[in-house]
Amino acid sequence: MASEIDSRNAENEKFMKAALKEAKKAEAKSEVPVGAVIVSDGRIIARAHNVRGVSCDPTAHAEINALRKAGKKLGHWNLEGCDLYVTKEPCVMCAGAIVLSRVRRVRYGAFDKRFGCGGTVLNLTDNPVFNHRADTEGGIMECECAKLLTDFFKARRVKKNTDE
Amino acid sequence: MASEIDSRNAENEKFMKAALKEAKKAEAKSEVPVGAVIVSDGRIIARAHNVRGVSCDPTAHAEINALRKAGKKLGHWNLEGCDLYVTKEPCVMCAGAIVLSRVRRVRYGAFDKRFGCGGTVLNLTDNPVFNHRADTEGGIMECECAKLLTDFFKARRVKKNTDE
Repeated sequence: MASEIDSRNAENEKFMKAALKEAKKAEAKSEVPVGAVIVSDGRIIARAHNVRGVSCDPTAHAEINALRKAGKKLGHWNLEGCDLYVTKEPCVMCAGAIVLSRVRRVRYGAFDKRFGCGGTVLNLTDNPVFNHRADTEGGIMECECAKLLTDFFKARRVKKNTDE
Repeated sequence: MASEIDSRNAENEKFMKAALKEAKKAEAKSEVPVGAVIVSDGRIIARAHNVRGVSCDPTAHAEINALRKAGKKLGHWNLEGCDLYVTKEPCVMCAGAIVLSRVRRVRYGAFDKRFGCGGTVLNLTDNPVFNHRADTEGGIMECECAKLLTDFFKARRVKKNTDE
């Protein structure tokens, strides 16, 4: 039993590290650093990061981009059996996209106390009112994921104050 | 006052008709017939329809596609001041995307008693927990919008029974 938990934790960490790599790509583009990967049969089939600003696309969050890529890869919109790893708790839109795409599990890093819809402000990913519920768990590599975000926003505030 | 209401109604009908045209394009592709347009300064700046199946994209609902197009057109993810017309009540994902993109008004046709998140099952488009609320109203040209959907699903059931 202990080894099963250990192997689950190791898997979570492995995939969250891949999502963190994606988040750093967003940061390099001065985008809010959030990254995501989609896993099917133990393999990463899609990697993506937030590009909302540079792409002029209000929907271009990491999760949405990853889900779109995974759909193309599998040749179907229905991603049942796939798991999503994302560095930050999904927002309302991304939580909805997770339900719509029938993702099996969601594992996220940092909790979002203001707008998180993976259980913190609202629980939309695993909610009985919808026709699909994704098994959801937050706090995977929480410190690393949250630090990336707090450092980013701190730097942005400093820049803003310097610019003024 | 009466003339103001008349002109508002006429405008709603004009843009919903454009959304219905888009819905018919989805139907022609054997997709669930939902269409949407985005209006800025009284002009349609984006038209789109549901292509979830043909595009193998779980996020490719009419609203998401229209919001993406509008962002590209305006050169920014923030669509404040824009209005969205859609033939069916937004689902959880699309309701979230409306909030995320800061759409001013949402006008939809058919109510969705099972999964509608524009006030029927949940109210996510105009909810105080988020940092943006879109003024939301359903039932615009409701009969035409609903008929398109009921006819589509009826035909699909007949086809399924014939195929079996």
